[in-house]
Amino acid sequence: MAWASAAIAERVSHLLGDSSENVVVISITLMVALLCACMIIGHLLEENKWMNESITSLILGLCTGVVVLAITRSTNSLVLEFDEELFFNYLLPPIIFNAGFQVKKKQFFRNFVAIVLFGVIGVFISFAVIAGGCGLIFPALKVQGLEIRDYLALGVIFSATDSVCTLQVLSQDDTPLLYSLVFGEGVVNDATSVVLFRAVESINLVEIDVFTILEVLGEFVYLYFTSTLMGIAVGLASAYIIKKLYFGRHSTDREIAIMILMAYFSYMIAELLYLSGILTVFFCGIVMSHYTWHNVTESSKVTTRHMFATLSFIAETFIFLYVGMDALDLDKWSRSDVTVATSAGLSATLVALVLIGRAAFVFPLSAFANLISRAPDTKISIRQQLIIWWAGLMRGAVSIALAYNKFTAISSINATMITSTIIVVLFSTVVFGLLTKPLVLWLLPPHLRSTDDSEPSSPKESDFYPDIQVPLLVNGEPNGAALMQNNASRQVGPVTSLRMLLRARSSSVHHFWRRFDDAYMRPVFGGRGFVPTIHEVSSEAALEAAQH
Amino acid sequence: MAWASAAIAERVSHLLGDSSENVVVISITLMVALLCACMIIGHLLEENKWMNESITSLILGLCTGVVVLAITRSTNSLVLEFDEELFFNYLLPPIIFNAGFQVKKKQFFRNFVAIVLFGVIGVFISFAVIAGGCGLIFPALKVQGLEIRDYLALGVIFSATDSVCTLQVLSQDDTPLLYSLVFGEGVVNDATSVVLFRAVESINLVEIDVFTILEVLGEFVYLYFTSTLMGIAVGLASAYIIKKLYFGRHSTDREIAIMILMAYFSYMIAELLYLSGILTVFFCGIVMSHYTWHNVTESSKVTTRHMFATLSFIAETFIFLYVGMDALDLDKWSRSDVTVATSAGLSATLVALVLIGRAAFVFPLSAFANLISRAPDTKISIRQQLIIWWAGLMRGAVSIALAYNKFTAISSINATMITSTIIVVLFSTVVFGLLTKPLVLWLLPPHLRSTDDSEPSSPKESDFYPDIQVPLLVNGEPNGAALMQNNASRQVGPVTSLRMLLRARSSSVHHFWRRFDDAYMRPVFGGRGFVPTIHEVSSEAALEAAQH
Repeated sequence: MAWASAAIAERVSHLLGDSSENVVVISITLMVALLCACMIIGHLLEENKWMNESITSLILGLCTGVVVLAITRSTNSLVLEFDEELFFNYLLPPIIFNAGFQVKKKQFFRNFVAIVLFGVIGVFISFAVIAGGCGLIFPALKVQGLEIRDYLALGVIFSATDSVCTLQVLSQDDTPLLYSLVFGEGVVNDATSVVLFRAVESINLVEIDVFTILEVLGEFVYLYFTSTLMGIAVGLASAYIIKKLYFGRHSTDREIAIMILMAYFSYMIAELLYLSGILTVFFCGIVMSHYTWHNVTESSKVTTRHMFATLSFIAETFIFLYVGMDALDLDKWSRSDVTVATSAGLSATLVALVLIGRAAFVFPLSAFANLISRAPDTKISIRQQLIIWWAGLMRGAVSIALAYNKFTAISSINATMITSTIIVVLFSTVVFGLLTKPLVLWLLPPHLRSTDDSEPSSPKESDFYPDIQVPLLVNGEPNGAALMQNNASRQVGPVTSLRMLLRARSSSVHHFWRRFDDAYMRPVFGGRGFVPTIHEVSSEAALEAAQH
Repeated sequence: MAWASAAIAERVSHLLGDSSENVVVISITLMVALLCACMIIGHLLEENKWMNESITSLILGLCTGVVVLAITRSTNSLVLEFDEELFFNYLLPPIIFNAGFQVKKKQFFRNFVAIVLFGVIGVFISFAVIAGGCGLIFPALKVQGLEIRDYLALGVIFSATDSVCTLQVLSQDDTPLLYSLVFGEGVVNDATSVVLFRAVESINLVEIDVFTILEVLGEFVYLYFTSTLMGIAVGLASAYIIKKLYFGRHSTDREIAIMILMAYFSYMIAELLYLSGILTVFFCGIVMSHYTWHNVTESSKVTTRHMFATLSFIAETFIFLYVGMDALDLDKWSRSDVTVATSAGLSATLVALVLIGRAAFVFPLSAFANLISRAPDTKISIRQQLIIWWAGLMRGAVSIALAYNKFTAISSINATMITSTIIVVLFSTVVFGLLTKPLVLWLLPPHLRSTDDSEPSSPKESDFYPDIQVPLLVNGEPNGAALMQNNASRQVGPVTSLRMLLRARSSSVHHFWRRFDDAYMRPVFGGRGFVPTIHEVSSEAALEAAQH
């Protein structure tokens, strides 16, 4: 052993010399080792009230950055550089797809109006507040070199709620309403940001007329419509292919491969066509979980569910590590020539504007949503509004990626903008992130939360153990009546007749969809109860034998 | 719909214009779409006697190459370029790891002597034949510009059996002995190739003395020893971490993530330390399936098994597509200035040398292995020898990657060597590959195969359905006695007393390992029967609820 370890030590020291050829291997090894460390530390800290996985990863990334800087004597920041392409093409899609795949669909569509309000109108309000605030305050801080276009870009960059952060601090099981609102908003506002960002870059700002505004609005409608449609189309295609091709001759590995590949395909084709890949892959996930997932073997069901969750989990951890390491890119810090005081002032301004910008739409829009809300149990209480406001404050990798995209040119002011973005991201993720869990506990203690959960906990899905198959949804309407009764009995406030009427309508939309789904969609695309449970004795037995 | 599709068409045509910025997005989208197509076509052709997945992918890759060339009017070969880094860092590890994870361990270790013989001595013989043959024949074909070092490199490049191809044509279930021999040889000879390649590159060829030869031999021993040890160490570490950390508080997604990350880490750390990553990750897979896999939850077991198989499947398909597309890299074809006749002559020579080189070691070494074999049921019959010879003839992406690595400089002769490699790879994969399935059927018809299967089909592993847990291996010796009886009753030839003695010794090695494993390893690292079956009601129930 001794000589082997000596030889290894000799090789390591040799390696540190020629860092040119092996940079890729070194950085992959380092990242994988750090990811392992994050998993283990995250597990150990899981019970901790304050910490969450993103903060652990961020801090570990920062520490690694310090160590790397110390070892390379401040010369090597190459290993750590943030790569937009890596982020958007490889890390983001699995996270958003998994969110769509695991989202509580009923809860999500119940709150659809509020989600769209937040995700579309909300971003506009926040954008206006932040862009306007920067335009007013930055000149006072003696920051020169920014044009109107840059202020507008800052508005977009800091208006995008980071859905990845939201996933980390809000729990779908504990606070389903809040989760679906904040996360849904995060997905929808990505599309809004894409359009806004493109509009800011391309529109002639001097001559804005009605026609330009209409054009931007048309672009919005086009983008939402096509992105969603694309996601649904790819999802349905996957369901159809698996249902048709694999009937009677299933192959677990091939099914899983097709699901992964088609999910990824939906994102890439949307990006290729300048749509919102995030919106597309999210809807693809929803459709896949509703149809495709029910057409595959038992093993595929277990595998896909956990595989997508695991890939998403690794990607999330990777992103936070990455952001943490990137924060120590000395090159950018040295290029920015503003004083520490100015830099602090800029960052503080941005954080304040983010706080105000979000408050400016969460409270008014919540009130509006409550006003038009059909079902009383989707009303957003003031405590919930506070959490929505707070949980969406975190800015993450999306902001950093947009900032890198916008402030590419090598200049002092651009470097300053990037370092300010990094400070805001670190501050908001760590400070706001640390406080979110305690805040949720304080504002919504577990005994209050039951009124929040409008969705009854679903009966144990017996799909995994095919012997005890319970035909839950086969006969058209599932346990809808029970659900309504359940909600009614939980009701605390007065139930007016108007509300009753509205609720009946909302329930009838759901009823109509169920009937349409059962009559036209499920017979073609499969889904629960429409595909006989698939056993795959032979291939499974072969695999078992292989394990001997 | 019409306006949407018109808008999409407009965008696509716009895209084809600016191919500079979107090349990455386009090529990812294209690759993912092609992978989907391969999966679907592969499924449709599964029953076909001739085709296998690798040939389908290769042909689809070739067709795509033609289409891309036609669309871009022979200008764009960028989308298709073969990237060594992508191949070795991302595509190869999942394939080899999965092979180790799913390999029949008992079968593999029974034939260990033969595997090492083939993988070490065999590669040397094949290397000598091919290098010598090229040195003799190439000058006669009037190919100039190659040095002795280049001939030696060609010997290495064309001696490496492609384990990926082997996986595709031989079935572990139908022909377990052949599979373990040919595939095991492929894994071991990777390490041999690495050392040989490095030796060829670095050794002073003019002054070869005893000391140099001893040095190379020492390097070999060092490499096999440390690579294997590294794999075992990382595998055991993963088992220990999961056993210690997760006891009583399991988290399926985190367990799976740790398994994936540590498997990948074993490969990367080996590459970083100039070891054989393939050997390391293969042994890591074996250890993980023996210990780690038994320490996780039921869902994790199902998920990891299928997830690794699926990732490996996608990577394999990707490689063949890639090789097919790469074959049409016009740049290289135009740089090579030899005539078509010379090119054909070169390729034919190489194919012939590959055939001879493999024959030169398979038959003598099989005879030798039969001579020293302890158990009569591991004897290699002449029909089996023919299949071993034939199934290992395919040269694949490893050869291409080595050729790119060696012949990097831009010169006519280097381009010729690369195009010749591509021709040999295409020819061997398609022609030899097409003929392998029928050959196996012809030489070993199913009724003959039973004598080949020395491993009794394992009893249904009941780990998935924890209620019917059968303590197979808990009491020290499993069904070893039954196994011996089973083999004895199947015996056809005469059983001499010497053979009985040898077989008793072989069985005692296994017995000793079992006792050591039960007494020292399993209590620390877990494994079947040493970790109570883990249910994870809470997280599973949460996931079920999420699906509603």
